[in-house]
Amino acid sequence: MLALRSVNGAVFSILDYGRHARSSSALYCKQSWAGNICRYSSTSLKINSDRLWKTIHHTAQWGDSKDGGVRRLTLTDEDKEVRGWLAENVKELGCTLKIDEVGTMFAIRPGSDNSLPPIAMGSHLDTQPAGGKFDGILGVLGGLEVLRVLKENSVKTRNPIAVVNWTNEEGARFNSGMLGSSVWAGEISMEKAYGLKDVDGKTFKGELERIGYLGTVGASHKKNALGAHIELHIEQGPVLEETGKAIGVVTGVQAMGWLYVTVNGRCQHCGTTPMDRRSDALLAASKMIAKINEMALDLEGMSTVGVINSEPSSPGTIPGKVRFSVDLEHLDNDSRALMVERTKKICSQIGELENCKIDIEDTWTSRGVRFNPLCIDTVREAAIALVGEDGYAELPAGAGHDSVNTSYHCPTSMIFIPSQNGISHHPAEWTNQDQCALGVQTLLDAVLKLDQKI
Amino acid sequence: MLALRSVNGAVFSILDYGRHARSSSALYCKQSWAGNICRYSSTSLKINSDRLWKTIHHTAQWGDSKDGGVRRLTLTDEDKEVRGWLAENVKELGCTLKIDEVGTMFAIRPGSDNSLPPIAMGSHLDTQPAGGKFDGILGVLGGLEVLRVLKENSVKTRNPIAVVNWTNEEGARFNSGMLGSSVWAGEISMEKAYGLKDVDGKTFKGELERIGYLGTVGASHKKNALGAHIELHIEQGPVLEETGKAIGVVTGVQAMGWLYVTVNGRCQHCGTTPMDRRSDALLAASKMIAKINEMALDLEGMSTVGVINSEPSSPGTIPGKVRFSVDLEHLDNDSRALMVERTKKICSQIGELENCKIDIEDTWTSRGVRFNPLCIDTVREAAIALVGEDGYAELPAGAGHDSVNTSYHCPTSMIFIPSQNGISHHPAEWTNQDQCALGVQTLLDAVLKLDQKI
Repeated sequence: MLALRSVNGAVFSILDYGRHARSSSALYCKQSWAGNICRYSSTSLKINSDRLWKTIHHTAQWGDSKDGGVRRLTLTDEDKEVRGWLAENVKELGCTLKIDEVGTMFAIRPGSDNSLPPIAMGSHLDTQPAGGKFDGILGVLGGLEVLRVLKENSVKTRNPIAVVNWTNEEGARFNSGMLGSSVWAGEISMEKAYGLKDVDGKTFKGELERIGYLGTVGASHKKNALGAHIELHIEQGPVLEETGKAIGVVTGVQAMGWLYVTVNGRCQHCGTTPMDRRSDALLAASKMIAKINEMALDLEGMSTVGVINSEPSSPGTIPGKVRFSVDLEHLDNDSRALMVERTKKICSQIGELENCKIDIEDTWTSRGVRFNPLCIDTVREAAIALVGEDGYAELPAGAGHDSVNTSYHCPTSMIFIPSQNGISHHPAEWTNQDQCALGVQTLLDAVLKLDQKI
Repeated sequence: MLALRSVNGAVFSILDYGRHARSSSALYCKQSWAGNICRYSSTSLKINSDRLWKTIHHTAQWGDSKDGGVRRLTLTDEDKEVRGWLAENVKELGCTLKIDEVGTMFAIRPGSDNSLPPIAMGSHLDTQPAGGKFDGILGVLGGLEVLRVLKENSVKTRNPIAVVNWTNEEGARFNSGMLGSSVWAGEISMEKAYGLKDVDGKTFKGELERIGYLGTVGASHKKNALGAHIELHIEQGPVLEETGKAIGVVTGVQAMGWLYVTVNGRCQHCGTTPMDRRSDALLAASKMIAKINEMALDLEGMSTVGVINSEPSSPGTIPGKVRFSVDLEHLDNDSRALMVERTKKICSQIGELENCKIDIEDTWTSRGVRFNPLCIDTVREAAIALVGEDGYAELPAGAGHDSVNTSYHCPTSMIFIPSQNGISHHPAEWTNQDQCALGVQTLLDAVLKLDQKI
């Protein structure tokens, strides 16, 4: 069971949180937010909920999928249009716009000490092929709303404040997720990024040039440093909604990765092969899947088998070959390594019992990170000031985000707001106006607090 | 564990049979057969192993798949050619050839009392799309070899003796297996059979007409009765080979059928959805598959999940929908009904535990049959005379055969011979010359014994 840290530092399970959330204070917190902009700002500055909401829907025209969602694959014409709109808007706010060598946009509002690297509010404007209006988008447009509030209130920060639109976070067109931030962090070489091709054979570099976003600023944390990175994002999961929490203070990103298990049995006639003379690849795989799940629960991690293929796929034939994916995630890198080891052991033991030969490929791993304590504390302070001690939860991010890459090189944390029914990467992805406004208010307040600390 | 009845009536498991088979008498039996025709015929008549073997390979030209197998779908040009060849050969032997309304061929060698319905040796000459040289074919060509031996030895039987080539046993082109014998037995109406279409929209009746096999003899056990039906067939399973038995005395055909289970869960992001807040359709399905297997072992039946499909099939997404097939088989009809009931209970219980909704379709059922005791005894006597008490096994057929349909209306049993590696419905399907010859000798001897009993 995934453990979440409560406000007072005790460890509650998700279920405990669920019970906790049914307290009156959680309800009070929700009621306080109904149909209005923030009444609980910890600063005197208030974001404009209606302007934010209009901006979200205005920009959804570029890639409007006509079913409530957005299809805005990176470096397409739709991406070019929303980038052009962003560039125009940040320039109107007096920002300097830098485009780096992989097309990531850095809109920088000067501070009083411009020798300092900027405090960034970053996320991405690209989407999945059948994506929603919020994933990534809210983090950039929320940052823009913060800049607008700073501008209209003539706020002078000490640090420069930036909005960052990272290139190709989704990895849906060029299959390498979090690409812009990975190059910036030195996790992937620029050459490798440039050479990536889409399904039509078009290269990443060629498409950057085509839409006019092959910039000249060094795509590197060394050449283009950030002082901090705060990312506002929808949760993409059900925890906040189901526990009645308005804000998630994100403590880190889980270690995650995929194994692919191939089970080789013997394809035989089901009516003529006695039960004790079989090498049934699907029976073996089924036992493995159930056991891997038990193991993940034991180690307080997460496991998911999302893909399974069986051959020859005939109702009268014992499956001779089954291949399935195993996603393993854990807050702790060592614990995830143990999960991988145990998964391999489970598969080999069950394979032996079921007379099947096993092959396991380790196809993808992403290290887990714990975010910067100062940043986490700052987001928590902002959240408590807005929604009270019972109105927020601390939780890890289960999906990869650009903040993983920034966290290697600058103080980083994230703010989550609820996703209706936990749905994401789908046109039905939804977070309401009040929830979005509260998230952006938290972002504004956290950035202003951080400006005083850094 | 599937129980087989031993010679002395005690019940041995398959494993017990395996131990049993390693006795010296089983070896002796095998050695006696090396590279020769039958030395142990219980009659003075001996089949011609070389002629049989040549006939098998000669007729494999019609539908030769060039990879060792045969592709001879029913009512195709290849089927027309092999039928024409059979018609010519049985006429040369002095047989009357009757073609019934669904194209089934009855080649009848007169006996001394032609008012009696014939003792038939029946099987089929059609194959699966990627079939072998033996499945079905051996039963017809073996019958032809028996007729040849009777003719060259001027044997006069009391009953007429027939070879039957049942139409469309495989059901591969017109998707209704054992079609000719089903119409004959009154299990399927002729109108329904006539209306069946292949993938190109051609009808069964139209194709019968096209190849010249729309006969006029009533396709009915009432209008065209049989006195008995003995079917020689390859086992299509591993039991005889692995237990070192040369002949299988088939006691009946298992009750069998298919369920399709649909598990409806909730499709969610795997990294953001805690383990205790999931409706994982594949995890639920995996637990069901393992439990159904345990249940089948408990009830001494057989279960196989051959098909599984999971949606949306992404390694990072919890499966929202899984559909899988369940083949359930048992020697006893009531026990199979109990297996179906327990399977439904298992699925609904696990579905509830895993927060998934279950739908179950009962798509196909075939009643089990126990063959006629006189016929079984006769085949057993012939087998013992040829290979001794340790050289044969009694076992059920796990696949459907035309003999299921004949058993409803005339005394029926079957003779099995080993399949190399248990492989069937594949170009690699193989049974060697000696094994085929021993099977046909058993068929000859059983038919002659039966002629004296009926």
